[in-house]
This record gives sequence, C-alpha cells and structure tokens, in this order.
Amino acid sequence: MTKVDRKEANNHKKTSDRVFIFDTTLRDGEQSPGISLNAQEKLEIAHQLARLGVDIIEAGFPITSPGDFEAVRGIAREIDGPVICGLARTSFKDIERAWEAVRDSERPRIHTFIATSDIHIERKLQTTREDVMGQVKAAVAQAKSFTDDVEFSPEDGSRSDIEFMAEVIQIALDEGATTINVPDTVGYTMPDEYAEMFSQLHELVPDLKKVVVSVHCHDDLGLAVANSFAGIQAGCRQVECAVNGIGERAGNASLEEIVMLLHTRQSSVGAWTGVNTEEIARTSRMVSRLTGYSVQPNKAIVGRNAFAHEAGIHQDGVLKERTTYEIMDAKTIGLETNTLVLGKHSGRHALKNTLAELGFEVDGAALNKAFKHFKEIADKKKQVTALDLEAIVSDDLRQTSENLNLAWFDVEASTRRDPKAKVAIIDSNGNEVVSESGGDGPVDAIFKAIDKATGKHCDLKEYNVSAVTSGQDALGEAKVMLEVDGKVATGQGVATDVLEASARAYVRAIANAEQGRTLKDDSEVVP
Amino acid sequence: MTKVDRKEANNHKKTSDRVFIFDTTLRDGEQSPGISLNAQEKLEIAHQLARLGVDIIEAGFPITSPGDFEAVRGIAREIDGPVICGLARTSFKDIERAWEAVRDSERPRIHTFIATSDIHIERKLQTTREDVMGQVKAAVAQAKSFTDDVEFSPEDGSRSDIEFMAEVIQIALDEGATTINVPDTVGYTMPDEYAEMFSQLHELVPDLKKVVVSVHCHDDLGLAVANSFAGIQAGCRQVECAVNGIGERAGNASLEEIVMLLHTRQSSVGAWTGVNTEEIARTSRMVSRLTGYSVQPNKAIVGRNAFAHEAGIHQDGVLKERTTYEIMDAKTIGLETNTLVLGKHSGRHALKNTLAELGFEVDGAALNKAFKHFKEIADKKKQVTALDLEAIVSDDLRQTSENLNLAWFDVEASTRRDPKAKVAIIDSNGNEVVSESGGDGPVDAIFKAIDKATGKHCDLKEYNVSAVTSGQDALGEAKVMLEVDGKVATGQGVATDVLEASARAYVRAIANAEQGRTLKDDSEVVP
Repeated sequence: MTKVDRKEANNHKKTSDRVFIFDTTLRDGEQSPGISLNAQEKLEIAHQLARLGVDIIEAGFPITSPGDFEAVRGIAREIDGPVICGLARTSFKDIERAWEAVRDSERPRIHTFIATSDIHIERKLQTTREDVMGQVKAAVAQAKSFTDDVEFSPEDGSRSDIEFMAEVIQIALDEGATTINVPDTVGYTMPDEYAEMFSQLHELVPDLKKVVVSVHCHDDLGLAVANSFAGIQAGCRQVECAVNGIGERAGNASLEEIVMLLHTRQSSVGAWTGVNTEEIARTSRMVSRLTGYSVQPNKAIVGRNAFAHEAGIHQDGVLKERTTYEIMDAKTIGLETNTLVLGKHSGRHALKNTLAELGFEVDGAALNKAFKHFKEIADKKKQVTALDLEAIVSDDLRQTSENLNLAWFDVEASTRRDPKAKVAIIDSNGNEVVSESGGDGPVDAIFKAIDKATGKHCDLKEYNVSAVTSGQDALGEAKVMLEVDGKVATGQGVATDVLEASARAYVRAIANAEQGRTLKDDSEVVP
Repeated sequence: MTKVDRKEANNHKKTSDRVFIFDTTLRDGEQSPGISLNAQEKLEIAHQLARLGVDIIEAGFPITSPGDFEAVRGIAREIDGPVICGLARTSFKDIERAWEAVRDSERPRIHTFIATSDIHIERKLQTTREDVMGQVKAAVAQAKSFTDDVEFSPEDGSRSDIEFMAEVIQIALDEGATTINVPDTVGYTMPDEYAEMFSQLHELVPDLKKVVVSVHCHDDLGLAVANSFAGIQAGCRQVECAVNGIGERAGNASLEEIVMLLHTRQSSVGAWTGVNTEEIARTSRMVSRLTGYSVQPNKAIVGRNAFAHEAGIHQDGVLKERTTYEIMDAKTIGLETNTLVLGKHSGRHALKNTLAELGFEVDGAALNKAFKHFKEIADKKKQVTALDLEAIVSDDLRQTSENLNLAWFDVEASTRRDPKAKVAIIDSNGNEVVSESGGDGPVDAIFKAIDKATGKHCDLKEYNVSAVTSGQDALGEAKVMLEVDGKVATGQGVATDVLEASARAYVRAIANAEQGRTLKDDSEVVP
C-alpha cells in the first residue's frame, strides 16, 4: 500500500475510532532485567518510533537517574512529531524533574501515577487511602501548572476497589488530567473482566467521556493483547504498549500485535491507528538488537516464522494462493528480501546515502567510524546487506564513550589440547595491556585474559551469539551479561569472527559497568 | 503444592468444568520450519508430556513419512496414560496408516480433517462442497471401524460458512465422531467472534452437546490464548495447544499459558485441567532444546523474566510482599534454583539416579555414553547442574544413528591474521578424513574444513550459540540450520568450548540431511 493509498483509506475511518499508540519501550520496556540503553541508543530508538508513527513516546522515568533524565531531555529536544512523555510518582520532586526533562518538547506530557489497590497502598506505600487521594490532587495540579497534557494512572487498577479508584480518578479529572490510564499492572485480568471494569468506571465517573481513557496491560497470563483489545472495544482510545512486547516480567502488550490486529480486522472492529506498518519489522530488529532481547521464531508478526514464505522453506503445490494460509502480507510490515546493498568498493558517500535510506542519519566522526567498520567487514564478506548495515551502525552506537577497548587477540583452540588466548586491551589512559590465559574453551580463555588485563573479576550471567543474516560469511553478533563488582551490565559486539564479537561484547560490558550503565535495582518502576 | 494437596483441591472442582489438554507439540509444533526431531527425541518429549499430565498427545501425521509413522507407533507402544492420537486427511490410505501407527496404544485416537471454507475447498482442494461431505462421511466411518475415539476437524473452520460447516459436523457426528474440533487455522478470529461461532454451532447442531467440542487456535494476531479461552467460556472442553506455543507460522496457543491462566483464575472461571504444573518449566526447556526453538526472555510463564525474582536482579526495599507484583509462584511451574547435583568424582550410579530424578530413564549403552560425556564435562566444569545434565542427555539423544562424527579439530584465530582450521571427521566407513581451511573467522574456517572433509557444499541458514547456565565455565549449546544439496536440516551440539559445540552441530546437521531427517516441504499439514 502506498502512502497515498493509506491516506485515502483513512478518509472513511471515523475520528472517534482513532486509537492512540502510547509507546513505552523506552520506559517500561527498558525496565526489563538486562537492558541498559545509553542516551544515544534511546535517541536512535525514539527516532525510529517517530518514523513508525506512534502518537506518544514515554521516554523514561527522569527522577530515577541522571542518565535517564538526560536521555528523556535529549529525546524531548530532538524528536518532532510524537508527544514526549516523562513518568513521575506523585511526589513534588518527581514531577518537577519530569517537567525539566520534557519541557523542551513541542508536545510535552507528564504522566503521574500512584497505586490504588489496597495491597499496594498497605504493603508497598504503607499509607492510607486518604493520603493517596491527597497526593493525587497535589500531583495532578502541580503537573497541570507546567503543561496542559497530563496523564494519571491508578497503579494496580485492575485489582483496586472500583469505587475508591473512581473517587481518585474524579480527583485527577477535577485537577485537569487529560488522559486516564487504568493499568493491569500485574497481568491478572481477563478480557471480559477488564472491559467490564471500564464500563463500571464510565458509570461511576461520567466525566471520563471528556478525556482519553487508556489501557496498559502486562502479559503474565498471555492475555496482554487480548485485554488491551477488550479495552478498545469498551471505548478506550489509548493503548500503552512496547515494541516486541518487552517490559517488566512477561512484558507489556506487544505494539506490533495490537497495531496489526486493528489493521487486519479494521473492517470488523472500526478502530484504527496512525502507525506506518511498513516500519514495524525494522523497529522490531532495532529494539531487539539494542536491548539484547531476542524475538522467538514463533512470535506473532515479527518472529522469523510469522510469515510462512519468509521461513526459507519451499512450499510447493499446496500454497496455490497466498490467502489460503496467510491473513497478512509480509510487505505490510516492511519485511522484504534481504537484498544486496553495498560491496567492498562502495565509497563513503554511498554508505551515507544507504544508511539514510535505512533511517540512520550518520555524519562526521560517526560516519567515519561506520565507514571504517563497513570496510573491515566488506573485506571479509562478499555482500554487505541492509541487515548487516543495521548491525554495524547499532554496534557503533554502543561505542560512544568507552574507557576500554579491545586492541587485538590471538587464540589457539583444539579438541586435543587446552586453549590459550593472548589479549591486548587499550585502557582509559590509552595504554596497551597484554595478558594471557587458558580456559575451558577459547571463549573462556579470552574472557579470562580480559579479566587479567582489566584487573576485574567478572561473573558471566548470560552469553549468546547469533548470525545476523544467513550464509557462511554472515556477521556474528554476541551479547553478554556480566556481574562486575556486584553490578550487572550488558555488552554487545558484531564481527565476522564470533570470537572477536564475543571479546568486544565482553570488554564493552566491563566498560558499561565502570561507567555506571548498569541494570537498575530499583524495581519501583511500574505501572 | 504436593500431589495430595492437588487431589484434594480437585475434589471441589466440577467434572463438567474439566478441560482436556490436547498437546500437538509433536504434530503442529513439529511442522515449524527448522524442526526435525528423530523418533527417539519425539519419544523423550512424549514421556515428558505424560509426566506433565496432558490428556491427549497428537504424536504425528503418520502418512507423511516413514519416520513420522515409526515415531507415532513408538509412542503408541511405549507411553501409558494419555490418549495417543494420529492425524489423517480424509483419504482411505491416510486413515489406515494413522490406525496402524496408533493401534498399539491403550487409548488410540484417529483425528481426521478436511477444509470446509470455500477458499480452501476451491483453491487448495479444488473440489466441491458435496465432495467434502462425502469424504467426511466415509472417513469418519472408516476411522470408527478401527477405534471408538474419533476426532473430526473442519479445517479453516473460523472462515467457513457456518451453515455448511454445521452440516459437515452433523455428518461426522452421525458417523460416530466423539470429538469435534473447530480450528482457527489461519489465526484470524477474535475472542467474541470465536465464542459466538460456537454458540451458533450449538444452535445449528444440538448433538454437539453429546460430544467434546474443541478449540485449536493460531497466534498470527497474538490472540491464540485469548481465543482458546473464549472457546472454553463458550463451553468447549478440549484445547489443542503446544509447549512454548510452537507450530505453523506464529504457532499454536501456548500450553503453559492456557494451563496457568485456568490455574490462576480458577476461582473466577471454574474450568480446570489435570496438568501437573510443576513439570511445566522442565517440559519447556526440553522442547526448546530438542526443537532448537528459543523462548524469548519476556515470554509469559516460561520466559527467563516471567518471574521477577528469577531474573537475577536484586530487588531490595520495594518487594515488601511477593504478591504486590507476582500473581503466580515460580515453584508452581517447577522453577527452582539451579542447584549443584554432581561433581567430577560422581560415579555412574549417582548419574543414573540423578537422571532418573530429572525424568530421564537412561540405561545400558545410553548410560555409558551419557557417563562418558558427563565425565568429559565434569573435568572442565566445577559443578555439573541439573540444567547441564538435561543438556548432556538431550545432546546424546541427537547422536543415535549417525553416519558422520567429529573426531578432533585444531584452530588458530586472531584479530591480526586470517584464521586456520584443521578438522578430522569419521565417515560412515569409520575412516578418518582430515581437511584444512581458512575463513572469515574460526567458525567459518571450521565449517569450510568440514565441507571439504565431507565433500558437501552447505549453505548456512541460521547459527546460534548460547550458554546453558551462567558462569564462565558454562556449557555452550550451538544450533545450526543448513541447506545441503537442496535439503534443509538442523543440528545441535553441546560442549564447554563454543567452537567444538559449533563443529558438532554442523556435522550433525550434515548427518541429518544425509539420513533424510530434513525439513518437510509438504505444507499441507494443518489444521
């Protein structure tokens, strides 16, 4: 479908059926264990979300760390189009900090929340219902003094006493909240139950019809998309969701599933979104690569097998017509053949243009670095594809401010002798430190030699290598999660040699740990 | 919950609310691209499904290949407890073959299907509605002549003209079908729509109340579990599902999500299953390992992050009570700490007992092989855990009838020089063939040397390595998918050295391709 077609098709969609996509990949998604995005990576994802056409980007939770604050402020300053939202508890400092972070956006939103379920009020907040009501009044009023666009969420809404929650929502509305989001924080509700809750809330709070009502569902019982959809059918017009369904525990409702469900069943359901579906596949790949969260092959919409003819298996005879088994066209989500784009003789200008087509605006020093990396890989690999370029650029994004770098290594491995590795690291002073080690295998020997060279004792929590594309000369992409001096950090590396990719990933994880880009241990990061 | 507790708890569950779990991991699941299980692996999974307490095991589609036939027959002969079911189209030969495969089971079922949607009748079957009705009558009658337990599915039911489908179902019932399964073959339906279809079918076919009505949902729009659940709420009492939600395209409804949804919300919903939930985690790991299909970290129930406290991140302060954020207990699905079970001084007897506790009955030559493998690993790895043992045994299951084996290899790799690999392969005549090669990296060099030694030209489609447990000395598990002479096959290998694991996986994929354990290109393997 061309852009013109899409606009025309929108002409007979009712405005009242427009569903706003509130993307929380950078907030709830980024709270997943093992994800540690730096400000540049978050900005890159935000750019892609804007291209995807989401309506609201929840860019982070500014009070939680200076890094989170800077990332939200950077996104607010650079990203045009979507509303940029910062999360805040109901405290004065939280809301002030959220406002400082988003104020430079053209369309800033403050999203404040407090729990309304008794179990959360008593056991987590250790306070009373009266106190909660007072906090909501003050917080929404304060947020409203900064911006017109204020969202309020009664955390653990689906397990709250509905009459008390209705009172709290009324207070938020009286103070000027423009969006009310009722989360299923613990992923406990069922579609009929969630829809019924919204019907009851509308009866108890007639003013709800004047604002946007929103769903926010978690997938603990596998129902996040179905519950969100039930909310839409009950009149909700904002869906909080994350790319690839990442987020706390089993994650949030998956953005791509919600969007493609509404897209595919629009004639039956009526509800529609403004998302440019052709950017879905690329967004999914970017988020998977930068977060280190793989997408399983049988994941709906964006899994490797979601479209039968993408599986690489010849299906002769039976598939006499695509629609016998496929209800969506792979092109709709931007899945195309992985065609050759560049070769070893391609120049800097060609690289820049190709990257721009892929949505990466790379210039100056970043372009020089990407070009150097591209040339190294083009020397070894016959064809450099769009998927390879995405991996190279994502890899380079990881390198912004490193205090440790891998210079070189030599390894001998054999099934008949113990392995030996010799590794050289450039430290923060620019000195080359060389160390040697044995190990259980070549990767272990390299990691131990890096430990020696850096003087760290690291505990490897997770390790994964996969090929970016198919073919013997495919790029290998390594991801590691380490515990270094009690801090957990991740690192990622790309190379045609899996040992080199592993070594780079390991060194970066140590660098990330040193720079405090570690995993948060503050879990109060719902709704 | 102990077994006694579970039985007591079941006492106040209504028999009419009992939902039968029909597991199709070995049939629809095994049809996923890239899965090629041998008969022994299928038997091992079937044993685990019986321990899990599923009611029906759909063991395969016997007509499709001699391998599939043998696997189903082996399961029918060995597995006690669940009904063993074989799939068959409506043709005479299909049903005869399915019966030969399942007849030795104590409780054999034949499951026959034909499409009832016009798009499938016209474009895939290229026949008429009349012909379909005739085929159903003959097929169910034939199946019924073999066994009382006959299931019929109108394929693509959710897109069928409901009045025609009702006529077809009536024919199947008249011929004695005891289970009627109405699949959402293409994953297109929505919960309300699917439930409404069942209500209409009950009106059109009053006899349906005398048999078990079943759901079979695909996850193309992310609704497989929600649609199955809507079917249960509309009175269906059999759910067709697969472990980890594997299956055609985006897969089937995930067994563990359905089971835990009913378990967690039993007091609201009433419906319940006979599944022993404590076997869920182990079943998921076994299926993931043997199929090569990874489970994403944010997958509901069985993903690494599904239970917050399993994520390895210390959550201090906030989680004052588990139930604030967790609606299920990790113990309920059998997730326990990965405790030390064996060390390098453990003997054969200890290994056998520990494996038996893990559910693996290993004896004779298989025990000798597992013990040898265990000793090799225990020499390199301080602790051999339950997860390691699962990986070792699964790895050995892959080796049953191999015509090619890796003898040894030597590799030199460096960031400063091109890599060199020397590999020795034992061929089917027992000869050692040695070859050398360079490459883009050490893995590529090893793979190229294996190509030379075996005289094959292989195209690497997918490559993945991950650590079985955490820790520097963790076992690495490699999975490859190759195209060899136009056939696609997978291989898997486990070793402390990722290069060795990769080399083993590659050699096995070639061996699998030679033995015809390749991926099916017959896609007529729905519903």
